[in-house]
Amino acid sequence: MSNEKIPYKIYLSEDELPKQWYNVRADMKKKPAPLLNPGTGMPVTAEELGHVFCDELVKQELDETTPYIDIPEEILGFYKMYRPSPLVRAYCLEKALDTPAKIYYKFEGNNTSGSHKLNSAIAQAYYAKKQGLKGVTTETGAGQWGTALSMACSYFGLDCKVYMVKVSYEQKPFRREVMRTYGASVTPSPSMTTEVGKKILAEFPDTNGSLGCAISEAVEAATSQEGYRYVLGSVLSQVLLHQTVIGLETKTAMDKYGIKPDIIIGCAGGGSNLGGLIAPFMGEKLKGKADYRIIAVEPASCPSLTRGVYAYDFCDTGKVCPLQKMYTLGSGFMPSANHAGGLRYHGMSAILSELYDQGLMEAVSVEQTAVFEAAQKFARVEGILPAPESSHAIKAAVDEALKCKETGEEKTILFGLTGTGYFDMYAYAAYNDGKMSDYIPTDEELQRSFDTLPKINK
Amino acid sequence: MSNEKIPYKIYLSEDELPKQWYNVRADMKKKPAPLLNPGTGMPVTAEELGHVFCDELVKQELDETTPYIDIPEEILGFYKMYRPSPLVRAYCLEKALDTPAKIYYKFEGNNTSGSHKLNSAIAQAYYAKKQGLKGVTTETGAGQWGTALSMACSYFGLDCKVYMVKVSYEQKPFRREVMRTYGASVTPSPSMTTEVGKKILAEFPDTNGSLGCAISEAVEAATSQEGYRYVLGSVLSQVLLHQTVIGLETKTAMDKYGIKPDIIIGCAGGGSNLGGLIAPFMGEKLKGKADYRIIAVEPASCPSLTRGVYAYDFCDTGKVCPLQKMYTLGSGFMPSANHAGGLRYHGMSAILSELYDQGLMEAVSVEQTAVFEAAQKFARVEGILPAPESSHAIKAAVDEALKCKETGEEKTILFGLTGTGYFDMYAYAAYNDGKMSDYIPTDEELQRSFDTLPKINK
Repeated sequence: MSNEKIPYKIYLSEDELPKQWYNVRADMKKKPAPLLNPGTGMPVTAEELGHVFCDELVKQELDETTPYIDIPEEILGFYKMYRPSPLVRAYCLEKALDTPAKIYYKFEGNNTSGSHKLNSAIAQAYYAKKQGLKGVTTETGAGQWGTALSMACSYFGLDCKVYMVKVSYEQKPFRREVMRTYGASVTPSPSMTTEVGKKILAEFPDTNGSLGCAISEAVEAATSQEGYRYVLGSVLSQVLLHQTVIGLETKTAMDKYGIKPDIIIGCAGGGSNLGGLIAPFMGEKLKGKADYRIIAVEPASCPSLTRGVYAYDFCDTGKVCPLQKMYTLGSGFMPSANHAGGLRYHGMSAILSELYDQGLMEAVSVEQTAVFEAAQKFARVEGILPAPESSHAIKAAVDEALKCKETGEEKTILFGLTGTGYFDMYAYAAYNDGKMSDYIPTDEELQRSFDTLPKINK
Repeated sequence: MSNEKIPYKIYLSEDELPKQWYNVRADMKKKPAPLLNPGTGMPVTAEELGHVFCDELVKQELDETTPYIDIPEEILGFYKMYRPSPLVRAYCLEKALDTPAKIYYKFEGNNTSGSHKLNSAIAQAYYAKKQGLKGVTTETGAGQWGTALSMACSYFGLDCKVYMVKVSYEQKPFRREVMRTYGASVTPSPSMTTEVGKKILAEFPDTNGSLGCAISEAVEAATSQEGYRYVLGSVLSQVLLHQTVIGLETKTAMDKYGIKPDIIIGCAGGGSNLGGLIAPFMGEKLKGKADYRIIAVEPASCPSLTRGVYAYDFCDTGKVCPLQKMYTLGSGFMPSANHAGGLRYHGMSAILSELYDQGLMEAVSVEQTAVFEAAQKFARVEGILPAPESSHAIKAAVDEALKCKETGEEKTILFGLTGTGYFDMYAYAAYNDGKMSDYIPTDEELQRSFDTLPKINK
């Protein structure tokens, strides 16, 4: 098919949906460091993790050797409701940029949750249901993950308790309502419903909340109730595993048309989208079968890869979760108040951290005003209003395409467009009104935050 | 292909996109009544209409005989950015309803404007650009049309001035921001920027605005400035023509899989979506080639087909537009304040009014609490958060599917899912909180409104 004209949108058929997720760890010679029990400093056991996570997900979290893991029929059935997602040739953006580059994006916003998060939410809800649980708890910041999980739980008839970072709960009432429409209960965090919430409120009564704090509350809510487990929308290796459906579909579609990307770009908060998009390409790279430039794009206001340290750290503010070795800004790090959207987690997926540390991928950071400028340009020509998170990838892709314009190179650029920005109009309004500002943490601020790293690193 | 398993989503290829719109009037023996000049009472001429609308659109508005009209290449190019739209087999909804009925919906919400309105917006913007105009003016209520037009104008580099019903402007700031992101100027209506706005404000200083009033302002803004024309998102025959892309794609997809709908359902405000969806099916019906039950669904709070009269009426409150013969509640009619979402226009497309009058289609009205109940059920199982407008069609489709459950009939039901409800979360919140109410106008209210009909009917 390689001589065929590439359509604007490449849709695979249902039969071409991947039947297995790809576990990139199986092909990594040096694996990510193991999760540690914060009390003992020893690698966590499946039994210990089983108090927090569903059994099957614990297995996936700890499995470093099985390259392909079957996607259960029930999950495939749900995937068919909104997948395969389109791989779009950005003809209009190319024209607007007047670049010889060929730009493709994999669009994950075409489902009601509005983002790629649903790919893992449905898997996690399925395993919880299969284990006979009553429900799950989670945290959400910008709200994409909470929305996706609410939708997934409603599908399987599971109870869903969402702890939503207080500032988002107040600023994004519509996100909250979508979750409620799907039957979830949504609690602003910190709250008086948990011990850790009470403790944080006693110390900081005026806090706006943070993702790390909401995680702690959700974990407590799960472990203190019969029949509940905690689920997480990013960072974990199990989440990256489920998200490989993005990359696998992309690779199938590109192979079908004989397209080989030179550069692969994704935004990176906890790493779920980037990890999922690049997985099969990284697999080829690890096996020496192909080479690709792979670029993680993070906000300059929360730069874990570009300015963080590679160390063991707490995954949550309450310090109840296992320690993970990752690129981190320290669990005490809080992005500045003017930071819009997601990508505000202090750390990065262990898998991506290790791949980055091995020099197998690059990272850049971008400032948010430039990100919204790219978002607006993209919206106007491509007809999709992108989420602020996704727009980080757009910005980097546009920059690469403009370099091609200078050099005349016809590079093929692939990026992940993770979601839509319908619930981020406050941020767009700030941009439209010229009131958006940028913030880059100082070295001193980062140093203070690094000081919160656990002693085990010393 | 008729024995093939029907996939969850049927996507046509780009090559299968219709190359022509279908003008159903060409196959109507009795045509819709002509538009009249409100001053002279005589049929309007192309020249008169040319002061308000673009020349090519005037031609399309008045053309009752050409069955197929070529879609210009530039519009086809834009269509490819988001079309063909999916025809979805609602397997999950069927299962949830436990019905033997086969339910299909054509989903038009997969573009940033969030609805089918873009199909006509891009056509109208194209013809305005081709005529060398500087820009266009329009009104918007719920905001779908204004968003779509902003997007279309941004694509062709046209200025776009939107008069937004004041209550929506205030209650839907995010819709406004999407329009601004696409570069449109958005003015709350009534405003002091037009004579008609000033007059209405002088008489009713506390008014919330209405669609009819916003139309009057937009028309004045277009006709009082060099290089501007007015564009409208529904009601007009030209709009129904552009929207036939919905029905043509649907028919192609159904024919491909050997599916024949027994019942075709669409929500109806001004009629653009319903008219577009049913056009090719109605064409067969008019030619005696096939029979279909066709059902228009309207809100009980704004029941133009089910409780209106078939008469000449003003299209706008300011009475500056041509008179149109249509099912109408009278141009003075205002849906009650608790009415959520669109479908609030006092009249109905002349084409649909005539087809309804000839008994070629049915109409039902539904109350909004029941509509949101259906919307929530649909969202939970089909994974799309529907617009309140679209949910009227869902409600009627669910009712028909439940009838099939009683009788055991395996009917095939097709409905139009016009858009997503991301900007309607206030209404969903009211429903979630049990605060949504219904309203049915009394006969006395309607009679008072009928009294505003022009004398020409007497």
